[in-house]
Amino acid sequence: MNSESEKQKIRQVIAEWLRASQAGDTEAVLRLMAEDAVFLLPGQEPMRGRAAFAAASRASAGKVRLLAATPEIREITITGDYAYCWNHLALKFATPDGKEQSRAGDVLSVFRKELDGRWVIFRDANLLTPGKIT
Amino acid sequence: MNSESEKQKIRQVIAEWLRASQAGDTEAVLRLMAEDAVFLLPGQEPMRGRAAFAAASRASAGKVRLLAATPEIREITITGDYAYCWNHLALKFATPDGKEQSRAGDVLSVFRKELDGRWVIFRDANLLTPGKIT
Repeated sequence: MNSESEKQKIRQVIAEWLRASQAGDTEAVLRLMAEDAVFLLPGQEPMRGRAAFAAASRASAGKVRLLAATPEIREITITGDYAYCWNHLALKFATPDGKEQSRAGDVLSVFRKELDGRWVIFRDANLLTPGKIT
Repeated sequence: MNSESEKQKIRQVIAEWLRASQAGDTEAVLRLMAEDAVFLLPGQEPMRGRAAFAAASRASAGKVRLLAATPEIREITITGDYAYCWNHLALKFATPDGKEQSRAGDVLSVFRKELDGRWVIFRDANLLTPGKIT
């Protein structure tokens, strides 16, 4: 089960997630998560479900724009129809006032294999903290 | 595999972890984690391995003391020899100056079943943030 081809599929989901996020393509991002996905963030209530994610994306549209995303995948472990991924992620955003802000840190995610064989994000703990503003 | 008895074993690991932490029993805590456990925290380098955890525990000994820990386990999913757990944790600490500090938030953990059947913490993303100081 821990085949390289399955891990490669998960790497592709992460790459496509970041590409779609940069393009502002929320519909494409939503296809990469489970209907009942949960996103955990420090100091915030969990974001539960695809609909909540879509609403949050709409609320931030035009306010912040993802300029660059650099994932460094530390490990992927596949176990049955689930997988765990530890990723170190560095992001760069543009804010409406023309400033750039960075965020970096670790992400621990659980992926689930759907009945059609696609891997989707199921649980996600995002530990990114703000870096310097330029 | 998703049997209640296996989930109950994981709940017991969490309860024993918090009990041993409150008692300052680092040796007991260390027995509940994998040799190659990794702990992820916001704004910090990952803490890799049991030895690093032990060193950090020694460094904080006598500085902060865990007074109370209230876990609310949101879900446990067992998949083969791994399991993931989403826990909402509220902690209360005493600092050397006699003040109390609270921390609360979500934890996403991956547990691994060892060859002897024991469940241990393998990966842990701790999203707790400070609360009020009294």
